Amino acid sequence: MNLYEEKDSALIPDFSVLASDGNARVGEFRMPRHSLQTPTFMPVGTRGSVRTITSQDLEEIGADIILGNTYHLMLRPGEALIEEFGGIHGFANWPRLVLTDSGGYQVFSLEPYVDDDGVEFKSTYDGSMHRLTPEKAVEIQISLGSDIQMVLDVCPPIPAENGVVEMAVERTHQWAKRGRDHFLKIRDSGHSDKAQFGIVQGGLNSDLRRVSAEQIVEVGFDGYAIGGLSVGETRQEMIEPMNISVEGLPVDRPRYFMGLGDPAGLVEAIASGVDMFDCVWPTRLARHGTALTMEGRVNLGAARYARSDDPIDPQFLLSPTSKWSRGYIRHLLSVGEPVAGRLLTLHNLAWTFDFIRRARESIQMGEFASFRKQTLQIWG
Amino acid sequence: MNLYEEKDSALIPDFSVLASDGNARVGEFRMPRHSLQTPTFMPVGTRGSVRTITSQDLEEIGADIILGNTYHLMLRPGEALIEEFGGIHGFANWPRLVLTDSGGYQVFSLEPYVDDDGVEFKSTYDGSMHRLTPEKAVEIQISLGSDIQMVLDVCPPIPAENGVVEMAVERTHQWAKRGRDHFLKIRDSGHSDKAQFGIVQGGLNSDLRRVSAEQIVEVGFDGYAIGGLSVGETRQEMIEPMNISVEGLPVDRPRYFMGLGDPAGLVEAIASGVDMFDCVWPTRLARHGTALTMEGRVNLGAARYARSDDPIDPQFLLSPTSKWSRGYIRHLLSVGEPVAGRLLTLHNLAWTFDFIRRARESIQMGEFASFRKQTLQIWG
Repeated sequence: MNLYEEKDSALIPDFSVLASDGNARVGEFRMPRHSLQTPTFMPVGTRGSVRTITSQDLEEIGADIILGNTYHLMLRPGEALIEEFGGIHGFANWPRLVLTDSGGYQVFSLEPYVDDDGVEFKSTYDGSMHRLTPEKAVEIQISLGSDIQMVLDVCPPIPAENGVVEMAVERTHQWAKRGRDHFLKIRDSGHSDKAQFGIVQGGLNSDLRRVSAEQIVEVGFDGYAIGGLSVGETRQEMIEPMNISVEGLPVDRPRYFMGLGDPAGLVEAIASGVDMFDCVWPTRLARHGTALTMEGRVNLGAARYARSDDPIDPQFLLSPTSKWSRGYIRHLLSVGEPVAGRLLTLHNLAWTFDFIRRARESIQMGEFASFRKQTLQIWG
Repeated sequence: MNLYEEKDSALIPDFSVLASDGNARVGEFRMPRHSLQTPTFMPVGTRGSVRTITSQDLEEIGADIILGNTYHLMLRPGEALIEEFGGIHGFANWPRLVLTDSGGYQVFSLEPYVDDDGVEFKSTYDGSMHRLTPEKAVEIQISLGSDIQMVLDVCPPIPAENGVVEMAVERTHQWAKRGRDHFLKIRDSGHSDKAQFGIVQGGLNSDLRRVSAEQIVEVGFDGYAIGGLSVGETRQEMIEPMNISVEGLPVDRPRYFMGLGDPAGLVEAIASGVDMFDCVWPTRLARHGTALTMEGRVNLGAARYARSDDPIDPQFLLSPTSKWSRGYIRHLLSVGEPVAGRLLTLHNLAWTFDFIRRARESIQMGEFASFRKQTLQIWG
């Protein structure tokens, strides 16, 4: 069953649903700089680099879009310097898409001072004080050259008391209005190729999720993110608030689940109708010696792989690392050779891209239910 | 002026001098697995990997031959395991040439117990005791699959008393005879594609250098190395013992200066008639943020490069890293992104290969004297 959606020409990206299977869908996502198909996975390039690999590596393994962290980049090297280099694209020599978060998520983990106007926090680099407001977050992300920027929101921890979550939803709503207004003014003055996504909050509370989605959609963004989940709750706890958030979002705009990247989580979110994902999970596992394979996680540091002549994943022959053996990589890990992290990062990202490609294929073939079941059997 | 030397068909590699300029020479170095032109530089892959890069990277930047450290590989993961994978070539997936040292140099830095038979030492990995003899060093390097193996020698420190150096020269001679005998027996039984090089010792003492060269040449090897230099002495102190060592070596066999890799040292050794080099210097500098450029060393961690849009070396546009700016790399260094080490390693090795290529070209054009002068002006 295919659904062809009408696109809203005022919004960016040019997005249309090409195929769907249940709520899961394959989308065409077009921006002036680059186009891609959704679902899509965005590797995290926290400080202007995906750890251990280059932008050229990312192109070669088929990344379409990477995520940059506004919090880190505004502090080091600073958005003004990155702007001089032509934004993250020019700085990191990355020709495809860049999405940046607003900085809010990292700032809120630092127990900052928050008021209605914005948030004040201490730099983890040098202790200096900094301030983010919805307007400032827009401007910094314009300087960073982000193709897609995120509005500043308030992300409460899980668990949190209802009052705290309610307050976060309310402030997220007020900041969404200010951030969107400011963004649209700037977009009209020479940044017509940029997009801004809103963020739904509400913790694990279904009513607050519903309210937040309604408020954010009412403000109106180019795309919509589900924030404040995948922050420590179980997958089971995550599913209902995710589904309720997605139900509140327009079918014709891209939906982005922030901070999700494990196969079981991805397949559940895709089943719910989510299109975009980012997470440090595959790359962090890689740097700790763990590979993603068709049979699940494999800890290549284990002695039992010392004599293995198999590639990292014998069932994923398109891995850019398939010519090196598990035994060789186990050796590199055991003697602390830094290139082990690089090889596993390349593998885990290529594997995740392939996983997402297989998800798209299963949706297009009307076989997503079986893909989901198989995935949960191994990763659930 | 070109000198065409007769090759000794019993020896490996098939080596001929294609061109010379003074004592400096360009050679053709043919082995069954791979051929190359000398002078050549060998990156050091201590533990079966050149730190931060892969064997595929090495092929792409044009490495012809890499060096492996027997000491490290015999301890981790052990030569028997590497042999199961088809030697270093199969283990690291490296199709071109491998030269291994004998382990002696590293062992002697551990203050081992030495007698006429061999040397006993404690593993730096787990404290276990191990023994190397001239025969054992041959066998381990056969297991490692080395195309070119080095005979076990005694490398005294600089400075050292004459008695110590004399003893080292004598033992080096005795071990050379035993090592060569053992190697030739093994070569005759199915390893006809392997080469073994002898090593000249003698510290800074010209008489001992002369004696050692004569003794080692009398034993007769496939090629000859100058050992025991570039271990802390000044370049000026190094030159005479190097020249005397080289003078004692046959003109028709390759000559290898162990542990030399800076441009000034390279150009002096090439002037003396040396053909092969290895050193951790370019790759170690890279991991500490220093780039090799046509204008000398550049510490890219310095704040003055923060806004530089130039590539690492604006005069070396063939660098595999030329699309990234000094400013970006400075940022990566300042926030500790590991990919900075990778980019600088790729650059410094490619730069060194290009330097050596320019040296060959200047010899072929009869312009080596001017190349040497220019090099010493910048790097001397």
